[in-house]
Amino acid sequence: MSKLFDYVDANQKRFNSELFDLLRIPSVSTDSALKGDVRKAALFIEDRLKDAGMEEVRICETKGHPVVLAKHLKAGPDKPTVLIYGHYDVQPPDPLNLWTSPPFEPVEKDGKVYARGASDDKGQAYIHVKAIETWLKSGEELPVNVKVIIEGEEEIGSPNLVPFLEEHKEELSCDMVLVSDTAMFAKDTPSITYGLRGLAYMELEVFGPNRDLHSGVYGGAITNPLNALCEIVAKLKDESGRILIPGFYDDVIDLSEKERDAYSKLPFDEKGWLGSIGVTEAVGEEGYSTLERKSARPTLDMNGMWGGYQGEGAKTVLPAEAGAKISMRLVPNQHPDTISKLFQEYVEKIAPEGVKIKVTAHHGGHPAMTPLDFYGLKAAGKAYHDVYGKEPLFAREGGSIPIVADFEKVLGVNTILMGFGLNTDAIHSPNEHFSLEDFHRGIKTAARFLQVLPEFVK
Amino acid sequence: MSKLFDYVDANQKRFNSELFDLLRIPSVSTDSALKGDVRKAALFIEDRLKDAGMEEVRICETKGHPVVLAKHLKAGPDKPTVLIYGHYDVQPPDPLNLWTSPPFEPVEKDGKVYARGASDDKGQAYIHVKAIETWLKSGEELPVNVKVIIEGEEEIGSPNLVPFLEEHKEELSCDMVLVSDTAMFAKDTPSITYGLRGLAYMELEVFGPNRDLHSGVYGGAITNPLNALCEIVAKLKDESGRILIPGFYDDVIDLSEKERDAYSKLPFDEKGWLGSIGVTEAVGEEGYSTLERKSARPTLDMNGMWGGYQGEGAKTVLPAEAGAKISMRLVPNQHPDTISKLFQEYVEKIAPEGVKIKVTAHHGGHPAMTPLDFYGLKAAGKAYHDVYGKEPLFAREGGSIPIVADFEKVLGVNTILMGFGLNTDAIHSPNEHFSLEDFHRGIKTAARFLQVLPEFVK
Repeated sequence: MSKLFDYVDANQKRFNSELFDLLRIPSVSTDSALKGDVRKAALFIEDRLKDAGMEEVRICETKGHPVVLAKHLKAGPDKPTVLIYGHYDVQPPDPLNLWTSPPFEPVEKDGKVYARGASDDKGQAYIHVKAIETWLKSGEELPVNVKVIIEGEEEIGSPNLVPFLEEHKEELSCDMVLVSDTAMFAKDTPSITYGLRGLAYMELEVFGPNRDLHSGVYGGAITNPLNALCEIVAKLKDESGRILIPGFYDDVIDLSEKERDAYSKLPFDEKGWLGSIGVTEAVGEEGYSTLERKSARPTLDMNGMWGGYQGEGAKTVLPAEAGAKISMRLVPNQHPDTISKLFQEYVEKIAPEGVKIKVTAHHGGHPAMTPLDFYGLKAAGKAYHDVYGKEPLFAREGGSIPIVADFEKVLGVNTILMGFGLNTDAIHSPNEHFSLEDFHRGIKTAARFLQVLPEFVK
Repeated sequence: MSKLFDYVDANQKRFNSELFDLLRIPSVSTDSALKGDVRKAALFIEDRLKDAGMEEVRICETKGHPVVLAKHLKAGPDKPTVLIYGHYDVQPPDPLNLWTSPPFEPVEKDGKVYARGASDDKGQAYIHVKAIETWLKSGEELPVNVKVIIEGEEEIGSPNLVPFLEEHKEELSCDMVLVSDTAMFAKDTPSITYGLRGLAYMELEVFGPNRDLHSGVYGGAITNPLNALCEIVAKLKDESGRILIPGFYDDVIDLSEKERDAYSKLPFDEKGWLGSIGVTEAVGEEGYSTLERKSARPTLDMNGMWGGYQGEGAKTVLPAEAGAKISMRLVPNQHPDTISKLFQEYVEKIAPEGVKIKVTAHHGGHPAMTPLDFYGLKAAGKAYHDVYGKEPLFAREGGSIPIVADFEKVLGVNTILMGFGLNTDAIHSPNEHFSLEDFHRGIKTAARFLQVLPEFVK
């Protein structure tokens, strides 16, 4: 262990310098004008994985930006195989005027590096590149097999990842996927995300008269599509926050006593959390805590609504139509297609007379959960402990990371989300940053994980 | 009677020709580039009233477009005084490409004149100018006193009319106001509108977190402003269409048995009406007919709503705020300020926890009703009967004509809405038109009204 850690310590300056070089490449995947820069980032990763001494490193073309694929399988087939996933593309840096330093000119300030992609995900992905180098250059042989894929389309929804996984299904076979693209619970508070919510995203349109009408001349005698839409929405949840769609909860795996117990011990500052979003009280499903509500319980939220006159002042229009975006976050084992269907059936049943409705399902996503007794999770816990000096917290996250469900679906394996970021890293926002201390500790934790993993194999 | 009617018949060609001249003036009050034309229309009216032989005719300046004021008081103080109101300004003609002939080049087709303002309100206002001429030129002395105001700002909300009325309150004192700016129930079906609805127009804003949040990370743990707004709206009415705001109906004067009986006999083609707006079923307050619902009962309709993401596809946003425009049509004796206050109090009471709300009252308007036993209404009925050969229908209208409430408020008198237009006249739309037969019959009806009025004085 100390030999590995010594190597990390001795090379930290260079590691930082290389990360800065990577951050200088404006690999904004959504900007077609920057296609060359996106590729440049891929080539940079490829070179560094080659420098690290991996057996095989190559660029794989896709219909979009390339994937860097690398393998080092010297541990042999009786040892576990870890597939490390990351992405080298970044969000657009806009609005530029809110950055205190240019987004692609990384600067160090108060122990953090400020640049687009510092935390999401160049910094966190590069942790693994350097952890692998640490193993291969410090004279040790890797005790597990390692495969790496670092893609360039995560920020545009990974449109080519599933086809890539399917095409390389044999080559990418593994025992688990390891991803560093999430946040820790708090500074110096390592944590492992073992569950993610899924998503069913619906659009609901309500059609009334064949044109906008004068609300004085027609009002009172026909169903108003906006009122009708509000009535429908109000019937989707009851006053206790319970979703009223019949069958909605049928496939929900309730939180176990052990999980609820662990949840209750998480160091969550609810008052501070509410203050940070400017809300005075937490409101949600009765019988559950705020943390449980926002990560382990299914939800139903309106994401948008429109209809009629939205300008200044008054216009006495009775609108011809109204619409809304409504999404439900799902938990294991809810299925997005089943939930979409139940939503549609219920809405059709409760729609007021005098209007027509149309329900459209937008993209969905499966929830995901790695069992708490999975040996990879335990190894990750040990690695965090040995670097951070404390046991990591285990928690579920409220958002979705679709690739996690994809890995499970295509490769049939669990994913370990070993995050080193913080929720305050301003990812997707101006002045994104990443703690260089956690970059450093992350490399050690990732290296240590590969070391202890064999001990935990059942 | 026949002397008056003979004069109208003998001069109809010239009357038409003068109306066409008036219609050629593009007096669009909202278009500052046409200010000179608006004035030209005022001067045209002034000249024709002088030609008619009225005692006093003058242009009164306002902060905006001028008012034409005329008086003929020879009948003496023991005779009734009628104040005739109309407007010489018109709506903009856009979209021009949908007109089959230019909007300010009147043409006669199938007995109708096509031009902007033909029905609203140049044609209908000019009826009274010619009715007065008919009296004063056919050798009869007017048996009532007549005052006339024809303004140039009706299509922009009459911003200077109330100040003008207040300033000339003594000079405009009268026993009733007579207005021809509405539609008959149907072709050859004269009708008198004796009631108009008022309006309370509210804006309701709901504020949640201090910024748009990720619906996955935060969803389930805080109140969503859009869901909250829908819940509030759904509690404003019950399933039978009854408005749930406490005290809302307290000041409503119920329809009398006599009125309901008259309503039930109105020749209303409900199926055709529904077909014309593309709606399959009439829906409204239980216990009332469609006609009653849309003209004699108070309503609550959403006029607009907004919040969150309204674009294509999906965005998983939990919006910081949401808003809606909600208006209530009022009936006698509801007061817009009282209703606005009741709305605000109720909404504040039912707002879900976890959000802040803001209620703003936009412009309101008083309902108006002329008692069915008012002698002026009876005289109007007689005049219609003597020209159209049938009793007029008496009905209320669902919309608001704010000036009617203003006349009541400032001058303390009832208004008689003696309409000669049709709902199919395409007012405010391309190809506005007005039946020349009704222009002709209108002049006779207006002249006859002035003749029979003294007989009905109680």
